[in-house]
Amino acid sequence: MADQSRAEKLAAEPESSALLELIEKLYPICRSITGDGVRETLRVLSSYIDLEIHEVPSGTEVLDWTVPREWNIRDAWIKNQRGERVVDFKKHNLHVVNYSAPIRATMSLDRLRPHLHTLPDHPDWIPYRTSYYEENWGFCLSQRDLEALPSGDYEVCIDSSLEPGSLTYGEVVLPGASGDEFLLSTHVCHPSLCDDNLTGVAISVFLARELARHERRLTLRFLYAPGTIGAITWLARNRETVGRVRHGMTLTCLGDRNQFTYKRTVRGDADVDRAAELVLRSSGRPHQIIEFFPYGYDERQYNSPGFRLAIGSLMRGRHGQFPEYHTSADNLGFISAEHLLESYRTVKEIVLALDGNQTYENLAPYGEPQLGRRGLYRALGGTNVPNLQFAMLWVLNLSDGQHALLDIARRAGMPFDTIRTAADLLVEGGLLEEVSARE
Amino acid sequence: MADQSRAEKLAAEPESSALLELIEKLYPICRSITGDGVRETLRVLSSYIDLEIHEVPSGTEVLDWTVPREWNIRDAWIKNQRGERVVDFKKHNLHVVNYSAPIRATMSLDRLRPHLHTLPDHPDWIPYRTSYYEENWGFCLSQRDLEALPSGDYEVCIDSSLEPGSLTYGEVVLPGASGDEFLLSTHVCHPSLCDDNLTGVAISVFLARELARHERRLTLRFLYAPGTIGAITWLARNRETVGRVRHGMTLTCLGDRNQFTYKRTVRGDADVDRAAELVLRSSGRPHQIIEFFPYGYDERQYNSPGFRLAIGSLMRGRHGQFPEYHTSADNLGFISAEHLLESYRTVKEIVLALDGNQTYENLAPYGEPQLGRRGLYRALGGTNVPNLQFAMLWVLNLSDGQHALLDIARRAGMPFDTIRTAADLLVEGGLLEEVSARE
Amino acid sequence: MADQSRAEKLAAEPESSALLELIEKLYPICRSITGDGVRETLRVLSSYIDLEIHEVPSGTEVLDWTVPREWNIRDAWIKNQRGERVVDFKKHNLHVVNYSAPIRATMSLDRLRPHLHTLPDHPDWIPYRTSYYEENWGFCLSQRDLEALPSGDYEVCIDSSLEPGSLTYGEVVLPGASGDEFLLSTHVCHPSLCDDNLTGVAISVFLARELARHERRLTLRFLYAPGTIGAITWLARNRETVGRVRHGMTLTCLGDRNQFTYKRTVRGDADVDRAAELVLRSSGRPHQIIEFFPYGYDERQYNSPGFRLAIGSLMRGRHGQFPEYHTSADNLGFISAEHLLESYRTVKEIVLALDGNQTYENLAPYGEPQLGRRGLYRALGGTNVPNLQFAMLWVLNLSDGQHALLDIARRAGMPFDTIRTAADLLVEGGLLEEVSARE
Repeated sequence: MADQSRAEKLAAEPESSALLELIEKLYPICRSITGDGVRETLRVLSSYIDLEIHEVPSGTEVLDWTVPREWNIRDAWIKNQRGERVVDFKKHNLHVVNYSAPIRATMSLDRLRPHLHTLPDHPDWIPYRTSYYEENWGFCLSQRDLEALPSGDYEVCIDSSLEPGSLTYGEVVLPGASGDEFLLSTHVCHPSLCDDNLTGVAISVFLARELARHERRLTLRFLYAPGTIGAITWLARNRETVGRVRHGMTLTCLGDRNQFTYKRTVRGDADVDRAAELVLRSSGRPHQIIEFFPYGYDERQYNSPGFRLAIGSLMRGRHGQFPEYHTSADNLGFISAEHLLESYRTVKEIVLALDGNQTYENLAPYGEPQLGRRGLYRALGGTNVPNLQFAMLWVLNLSDGQHALLDIARRAGMPFDTIRTAADLLVEGGLLEEVSARE
Repeated sequence: MADQSRAEKLAAEPESSALLELIEKLYPICRSITGDGVRETLRVLSSYIDLEIHEVPSGTEVLDWTVPREWNIRDAWIKNQRGERVVDFKKHNLHVVNYSAPIRATMSLDRLRPHLHTLPDHPDWIPYRTSYYEENWGFCLSQRDLEALPSGDYEVCIDSSLEPGSLTYGEVVLPGASGDEFLLSTHVCHPSLCDDNLTGVAISVFLARELARHERRLTLRFLYAPGTIGAITWLARNRETVGRVRHGMTLTCLGDRNQFTYKRTVRGDADVDRAAELVLRSSGRPHQIIEFFPYGYDERQYNSPGFRLAIGSLMRGRHGQFPEYHTSADNLGFISAEHLLESYRTVKEIVLALDGNQTYENLAPYGEPQLGRRGLYRALGGTNVPNLQFAMLWVLNLSDGQHALLDIARRAGMPFDTIRTAADLLVEGGLLEEVSARE
Repeated sequence: MADQSRAEKLAAEPESSALLELIEKLYPICRSITGDGVRETLRVLSSYIDLEIHEVPSGTEVLDWTVPREWNIRDAWIKNQRGERVVDFKKHNLHVVNYSAPIRATMSLDRLRPHLHTLPDHPDWIPYRTSYYEENWGFCLSQRDLEALPSGDYEVCIDSSLEPGSLTYGEVVLPGASGDEFLLSTHVCHPSLCDDNLTGVAISVFLARELARHERRLTLRFLYAPGTIGAITWLARNRETVGRVRHGMTLTCLGDRNQFTYKRTVRGDADVDRAAELVLRSSGRPHQIIEFFPYGYDERQYNSPGFRLAIGSLMRGRHGQFPEYHTSADNLGFISAEHLLESYRTVKEIVLALDGNQTYENLAPYGEPQLGRRGLYRALGGTNVPNLQFAMLWVLNLSDGQHALLDIARRAGMPFDTIRTAADLLVEGGLLEEVSARE
């Protein structure tokens, strides 16, 4: 990406409305961990990026797991004694417990009740529930609708199928000059939920599109897979080569109004942790850095002891910590174009910081080189030193082969871009040479 | 201890009144660093635990020291000109400077005065003074009693003896499956002082009694010895085998109402430091962790550079930092059954945490293993994860052979017990195997 | 310095008036990076200390730089149309941009204006400006004087010369028992500025004079050289031997009323960093410790990656951060004898702490040795331990060959002197032996 100015990079950005449009297209689809919902979703993404789509048959052994049967659903409802649909999947796909087994039966409200899920604290919202690994069925509805149901018999129908088929995921790889990879991973299994995780998906798609047009040092890999089983399937199928992934992040809940939270890798001081922390700090916006814990999204799988990939997680709203999380209130009104674009830029800056995080050696390491005669220093001695010149002094002082530019930016307390620009000027001035050896 | 449930362990606890009863029996005895006071004390302890008692002859060279003569005392007093005892050892054994040489003389108050010790700031209390390593004699009394003494001649008598004899200490060893030892060390040289250190002694005795009934991985060693010279004697006599002591604590001042203070080992990050810190933090009670300093109790000797045993110190009231310290106000009214029992439990939890602090290897380290099909995970996907399941995820993630359970508990911010239980479930589920190699 | 008591050392101090007198002598001289101003300055210093003066010809290549031409100035002025000097170098040597090329011309105020420098925020002060590495000329004057100049023509004259000559610097070396060196470096290129840096120069000179009279373990090197090019020249000429410099500081702005600031070496945890921090903390006075940054004074050169000498910087007023900095207000009234003497003592304490920072081995490491029978411990047992005895316990505990006395003082939270005295007593008592092996 060295050949393109930073201004050009910003100009190449998508309109924020484009991000929203993609999300609007994807929102109505009823996704799950397998089935046509994911397939349809990836088909939409394929119109934006050159997506390679993989189908992995049910029954395939993947690490400690097995690819489950494919779930598809056509309709589902609860009818009252007058034959009216009092709960209707056609109105909102959250009404069905995701991955529900098919059923058709008539039963009393008392017998039905254990299969009905509500949120008493938010009586107008429909919860999102799943039952992937224990065969079950159920409906989700608002507390208010539940309370309106008179006792008596109800006809229930879930017109779904659980049959051998396949699990579907997609990926885009943008090869870079080095074999080292950056992995951006997003889960695509949630039905009509917006922030979680159509925002992550949309940001990843537009980033893949923008960065495809630039030179890169790092190979960038964008993965769109169902949560847990999708990441596990991908890891199983790429077990031999996965060590190339040197950095990465899961992206989730990036369109809401919460401040950013970056969740560290289990290692805690990986380059991606440093890059994310620096980018967030340089932004001047309030944010949180939290330690890794083995829950949340697919960073759990990537950071498992057998793999220990340095995958952090960037989010705004935190997993399980905002009321709209996993409810029908996580809808199009819950996210905004402005927050999406801010998130887009933040992800991009982190990726660019790692892409530009080279290590150099100062070629004039004895004392400070005379920048003035190289046109790199203002001539008239005074008191203050402009930022870029100060950045050059930092790069010169710490470029002893032991410090990469991210380290230098952190220590200097300067944005990565300033340090990167200073290094470029010093390379042009013949004072700096890249160190190819890896730590 | 793996075979017994935690509930059973609590049930095996002594009544708090039993702790107080033992202290009441020991309180009147006039102990010193040698002599019949210690011998009588150990005899009382022998009725609770299977104590091995050692006698080391005066004159024995122990490290840089020599076992001193044996001190015994029958009576001591100061009489006024009317022959009345104005200071009387029979009323309180603190009235004599401990280890005083015998004397019988008549002298003026002026000449006697340098041998009289009081606490002007606490005019009703008798101080505790000793003169072990310089031959001397003296009396301690309240400031009020001193001020009531008219000038004139007094008859003084200390009917003590300083003669070749022996130093006495006791120990109990409860062998464990591994050769590694945990040492609980208490000083038994103080006369009628209660918090310092009959509380430490009583807690140690009842713990030895309770833990004798359980399986243990660690060998537990309980030492009851006079301060400084006793610990030095024990170290000298066990010089070849003392390296087996991998953890330990001195116990002192554990019956008063102060919050707990744990004083670290000189190393500062030994397993016992981590265990004590975790247990105290998990308790939710206010407490202090302080750094090692080469003063206080016998942790000084154990942490000396030649030995560097990882011995911390647990206390409530801190050495020299509460007014009752080393005065007659450190009496039975200064301690309570409630605080004793809380201390007892805290010591036990620290010992149990170290006994259970194994290191495991996750046998399904690639991704998370599917806990659900092993009955270790609730089936219906939702937002929050119960503690024990979260603990299992932590144990799985960090069991890479590099982290023992204490490390995992610290990082997870969970009580040791929860992590220990999670590990037990995972071992049963075939997902975890103990790593026998030592760091 | 072991043979002399600390009291004697204080008695050997200069009167604070002596420091001021030297500064008063040096203040009027117009110094620059080369020329007679520096030569005259070093001649004055030679009357105090045995200074070796070096002349390095213009054109000599030194590291990445070249020794510049020699600058000398006889007179400079701006005359109005009535022939009156409205700016006069004879009144204040800051009136000329330092290192200005000669000029003699008549020009309008408009054409002259870009060559005139003022401080609009401090309308009565003259700024200090230089133009060393780009040939230029100019005048500095107060904003008030500038505003008083009517438009019209002015005659300007700078009667300076820029000709081949030499760069001058001086140094004093006080050999110590070990080859390790401590470097005190001060820049001597500033004209009539007082705090920056005649205070650093005067403190260095008197310290060289005082310490010459003592035994030393460290070799002490005092360098008086022009800023940047002087340090670079010295480094170039001593490239082979400069590795002997194990510690050092640049001294600057040490006479004003600001609290002390110590700026760390780039390494950040060098012995000099620890010593300075300990001395400042032990003083009880407010102070700041700041991290290294590659700007400020000649610590920039010493800490460059090719050399990485552990040179910190001690100052009161910080580079560029007080209004009087690099202005005519940095005059004799800006400094005080009291602050100079406090600075003198602080520098000396840091040097002495490093000179005395030996590593010892406890010769009785098993348990505590019995200090009492060696006369090193008070006999009557009580509650508190005097500082010096506590210091002995610290030295004994940590003298395992891994901790030097500075480490011990830091950990004990005690002044270096107390720990040093304790170590001396223990050496005398046969309990401690110096470890000669280096880390």
